[in-house]
Amino acid sequence: MPHISLNSDEPGIRGLFRFRPETARPLNELVEVLLRQESTLTPGERELIAAYVSALNECRYCYNSHAAYAAAQLPEGMELVEQVRADLDAAPISGKLRALLAIAGAVQQGGLKVGDKDVTAAREQGATDLEIHDTVLIAAAFCMFNRYVDGLATIAPTDPADYAARAERIVSIGYLGLLAQSQSRT
Amino acid sequence: MPHISLNSDEPGIRGLFRFRPETARPLNELVEVLLRQESTLTPGERELIAAYVSALNECRYCYNSHAAYAAAQLPEGMELVEQVRADLDAAPISGKLRALLAIAGAVQQGGLKVGDKDVTAAREQGATDLEIHDTVLIAAAFCMFNRYVDGLATIAPTDPADYAARAERIVSIGYLGLLAQSQSRT
Repeated sequence: MPHISLNSDEPGIRGLFRFRPETARPLNELVEVLLRQESTLTPGERELIAAYVSALNECRYCYNSHAAYAAAQLPEGMELVEQVRADLDAAPISGKLRALLAIAGAVQQGGLKVGDKDVTAAREQGATDLEIHDTVLIAAAFCMFNRYVDGLATIAPTDPADYAARAERIVSIGYLGLLAQSQSRT
Repeated sequence: MPHISLNSDEPGIRGLFRFRPETARPLNELVEVLLRQESTLTPGERELIAAYVSALNECRYCYNSHAAYAAAQLPEGMELVEQVRADLDAAPISGKLRALLAIAGAVQQGGLKVGDKDVTAAREQGATDLEIHDTVLIAAAFCMFNRYVDGLATIAPTDPADYAARAERIVSIGYLGLLAQSQSRT
């Protein structure tokens, strides 16, 4: 049961967005830019970073959500998401994505854990400054979202179909589109 | 030296805002709502939560910044900020603020660390659901900002006067006002 009385029975962060629309707006604008705007990293790759950090933070709602969003946008689907979660070193991904995910893992532990060698490794694999910047900010942002969702003890749906259905809508209309639809419902 | 090549020599998060204005906008909107919009918690109390979490994350730039912003808006000034940092249990603050800061400290460790007893304790001291919500989100947001600033190894000014000068401008025009001024400079 959530720690506070929400004004809906929507699960996870959705109930928090409805409870506090003033903060929901900038939070959704942030993920829209980071995860969906034009970038040299695909939406699937960026959702994978979000899912990976959420797994490290053991946030069930955020992991299930962003794993589904990544799977819906990566050719390799959920199998790859689970492989990255289980063993980053062994997962069949590019050297650049592996190095960026390693930076995200360091950020999850703490900002001061990101070393010169992590950044050099990513750069040697072809990562640009903007890709490194966005990876750090995506990882940092999910350290926020994960704490927000679990710090208020929101409920995570148990049926994978819930997350898959939402993934379809994220792919088609995005975070801001979904927020607008949700806010227009009574 | 920052891990990436920034397009200015501005310190801390300011250099990151200039490097990536697309994410600077929602990030500043978020703190403007959380730390400065109308609330039953004063701006000084909310900046104190931000400073406390930044201290726990050992983020020098964010701690110095938000300690200065809190000090500028609390009657007791910097002495109280330092007392809270040094020993939350002994600091001369209200029972409600102490309980909210304890929740913030739990969020800093991880969302799952916030227990029913932490929330019950805050409620017994008169905290509302909205105050508990905002405390959790402020603490979570600073777990993001701290990781963003340190994960990219930005520079923290060493002169306290830098932070005090900025505090005056935050109090007078706020986060969005400062961002607009900064973006209008060439």
